Amino acid sequence: MARTETVTLTNMCMVTDGTRVLVQNRVDPDWSGYTFPGGHVEKGESFTDAVIREVKEETGLIIEAPRLCGIKDWINEDGSRYMVLLYRADRWHGQLTSSEEGEVSWVALDTLRSLPLADSMENMLRVFLEEEISEQYYFQQPDGQWVEMLK
Amino acid sequence: MARTETVTLTNMCMVTDGTRVLVQNRVDPDWSGYTFPGGHVEKGESFTDAVIREVKEETGLIIEAPRLCGIKDWINEDGSRYMVLLYRADRWHGQLTSSEEGEVSWVALDTLRSLPLADSMENMLRVFLEEEISEQYYFQQPDGQWVEMLK
Repeated sequence: MARTETVTLTNMCMVTDGTRVLVQNRVDPDWSGYTFPGGHVEKGESFTDAVIREVKEETGLIIEAPRLCGIKDWINEDGSRYMVLLYRADRWHGQLTSSEEGEVSWVALDTLRSLPLADSMENMLRVFLEEEISEQYYFQQPDGQWVEMLK
Repeated sequence: MARTETVTLTNMCMVTDGTRVLVQNRVDPDWSGYTFPGGHVEKGESFTDAVIREVKEETGLIIEAPRLCGIKDWINEDGSRYMVLLYRADRWHGQLTSSEEGEVSWVALDTLRSLPLADSMENMLRVFLEEEISEQYYFQQPDGQWVEMLK
């Protein structure tokens, strides 16, 4: 028997230049605030190609050899799963250019937490930065309460 | 609009003790030979819980803090995607015990390639071991030929 799930596949990438990281100040009212660039994986597209394409579209930079470092995921009420594949990239070329999604800029990694981050971004940062954590997972309890776990 | 894919979610883990890795000699006729333990993610299960559970079921060992290091994936003829999340774990406890899936044993990492590996396992090893590679991706060309890419 096929054992499949209905999944929304997306990505997000922490681009670094050694001491600074590339942030996007998202304008989307559904999820606004500072975050990293990323977006949807197209049907049939390789995951690596997808994150390179999204970072290019939103920042103008062409990243090289993005490294997978974790996953954010949650289970929707209809049982489908939403996945965000989290990458790091420290090599890139090109000219920094913002998109309609939000202005992009370099900020020092140690000042990032003082910015108005998008919801859930503070713990997502821990998945990007801490080797011991590979997943930011959310599930809904029977009483409707959402629970977040870092694993 | 919802942008979802139909996905089979599985995992595989390279468990190490410093110099050796834990291999499974798979008996499944569809995919036999030496590989690493792993299996299906259950619906709604966290990815980290899933790989810990599968390694426990197939080896008896309880791994700690598995680290995501890459993905193997391909697109089936019906457009659905098959994903294998690849993990590494170098901390574990418990007693080594084989399962019906195949005998498990420790082998030196540098002798692994001389074993009769399962199909595609040799390049999968590169995703486990090389920081520059995050994905082993297969797609079918219009003429029906499968193409493998390491990205």
